[in-house]
Amino acid sequence: MEYLKDKALLEAFGNNLRRLRKEKGFTQEKLAFEIGIEISQISRIERGILNTSVSTANAISKALKVPIRELFDFDRDRLS
Amino acid sequence: MEYLKDKALLEAFGNNLRRLRKEKGFTQEKLAFEIGIEISQISRIERGILNTSVSTANAISKALKVPIRELFDFDRDRLS
Repeated sequence: MEYLKDKALLEAFGNNLRRLRKEKGFTQEKLAFEIGIEISQISRIERGILNTSVSTANAISKALKVPIRELFDFDRDRLS
Repeated sequence: MEYLKDKALLEAFGNNLRRLRKEKGFTQEKLAFEIGIEISQISRIERGILNTSVSTANAISKALKVPIRELFDFDRDRLS
């Protein structure tokens, strides 16, 4: 059961982040500054190439003022 | 805005994991084996002392057959 590095999941998470960030009117720069990480980190998360941590996901959700579960709310069937 | 290492979030995530794992009748050992990580890693995640990754959270949700967002479904107000 090797689904640890799940590319589809990271891409879906990245798409969710980009969508929510834009809905809230944040640039990558503003979001990165708000939570104290590099812009490149936001960019790599959004492109699905960085496997970020639970606490970074939480910091993102707090900055965007969305419940953290919304970052993980994607079509389960499409992924499995 | 230093909420990157959010202890309360990690503890809430750990409590969710423990609750869901028990509801599904998994021991820590079975879950660890299922996703290919150490039992100690599951234990530290559940105790809120390990800031795990999004893909590990996904692997856990797949093994427990719950949507990943359920691991992140906790009382937003209690945390902020």
